[in-house]
Amino acid sequence: MTDRPRTRLFIESDLASGMAVECSRDQAHYLGNVLRLGPGDPVALFNGRDGEWLAHIRETGKKSATLTVDSCLRDQAPEPDLWLVFAPVKKAPLDFLVQKATELGVSALMPAITRRTVVERVKRERMEANAIEAAEQCERLTVPHVEDARPLSRILDGWPTDRHILLCAEAGEAVPINEFLRGAEGRGEPWAILTGPEGGFDQTELDLLNKFPNVSAVGLGPRILRADTAALAALACWQAALGDWQNRPPGRN
Amino acid sequence: MTDRPRTRLFIESDLASGMAVECSRDQAHYLGNVLRLGPGDPVALFNGRDGEWLAHIRETGKKSATLTVDSCLRDQAPEPDLWLVFAPVKKAPLDFLVQKATELGVSALMPAITRRTVVERVKRERMEANAIEAAEQCERLTVPHVEDARPLSRILDGWPTDRHILLCAEAGEAVPINEFLRGAEGRGEPWAILTGPEGGFDQTELDLLNKFPNVSAVGLGPRILRADTAALAALACWQAALGDWQNRPPGRN
Repeated sequence: MTDRPRTRLFIESDLASGMAVECSRDQAHYLGNVLRLGPGDPVALFNGRDGEWLAHIRETGKKSATLTVDSCLRDQAPEPDLWLVFAPVKKAPLDFLVQKATELGVSALMPAITRRTVVERVKRERMEANAIEAAEQCERLTVPHVEDARPLSRILDGWPTDRHILLCAEAGEAVPINEFLRGAEGRGEPWAILTGPEGGFDQTELDLLNKFPNVSAVGLGPRILRADTAALAALACWQAALGDWQNRPPGRN
Repeated sequence: MTDRPRTRLFIESDLASGMAVECSRDQAHYLGNVLRLGPGDPVALFNGRDGEWLAHIRETGKKSATLTVDSCLRDQAPEPDLWLVFAPVKKAPLDFLVQKATELGVSALMPAITRRTVVERVKRERMEANAIEAAEQCERLTVPHVEDARPLSRILDGWPTDRHILLCAEAGEAVPINEFLRGAEGRGEPWAILTGPEGGFDQTELDLLNKFPNVSAVGLGPRILRADTAALAALACWQAALGDWQNRPPGRN
């Protein structure tokens, strides 16, 4: 097997053997000035559709770089269909949450404005940049879809009826997450994890959620977790039980 | 039931009804200048031994504050005995890891210098301050024990023979964490989670670990997780399966 290049880039364009691929200006800067790579150096490319490809740098300029696509390293493979719907948190914890959630394999990040949400300004572009960087680093073949922040009620209005919701609830009735996930093993996808703001959901929101057929309230133990901790903990438990954690990282054995 | 005060402080001194408790200078500043609390205002106190107590402020000065302990809110209760032995990460991720690991209920934080560890300077005092703040916020009754960074080999030298090690391994043979934890349900405590640096453990370290009877290598899925993500994911899975996550936060029903 070919050695994997240390550098992995997400690009928008199609990928196939022999193709020339133009990098973005930021990627050209990263390759040429940060990593100091030049013509002939190998780079792995993925676009979320065509798998992962070995490529090499054809030329680097000050603001541009061109790569030639060589051979396929990995075929595109199905990934868990898991949305994270979360009340947004402050800037640094949000960067962290997006990075970690991407590593933990979410397929979509959907910030939800709830009644008790304090942070209302969420920069989608910044979330996308963090998601791309984390996807490159963790060797995913996709980048999670990032949505603009919307009111929770609006998100629920258009909710697909077949998508289960794992509601992380620090107050009220809830089944321990492990117990719930064991019982859910036959249910199949798709799923979403829903986490609230500091202080939790308010009663009208809980009433609205309780009307949904596919909502299950789960507990994450006796300590009060921060909003971002709760999201990461639930994602890890879900992946371990219902996701793809029976698999190993590629090429590490 | 008495309303819980919003403010919780960890203090060193004993706690019993009627006692006067002197705050640290930082705590006095926090109570008086940040929260702008004054005489009569309620505060919850815990010391890791005597449970949680309702107290009220007797007086606040510029650099000092005295509290009077009133009544017991919660008895001290046993908590999971789970160490986190981890190759330290950079400053901001380390702050984050200590905070999250405290919320996720670790009993001890032990930084381990491995062959591929890049960050060698770890400030124990800073870790302790972060652990205390997180414990106050998440309503724990204890603060995790924080150790100085030591070489992994030295930590393993004095390893207690009855303590199981969950080794998070991104390369080599490993059982999916969920499958392993299901099989481990009868084993009882104590446990430790061991996570490596970026790039993983080297072969001599893995050979050393493989000689231990109680080490089990587990996998956290097909994506390459950052060191801090791996630690948090393993802690969450352990707590959900073997820890105290069948319990709910106190006073939230």
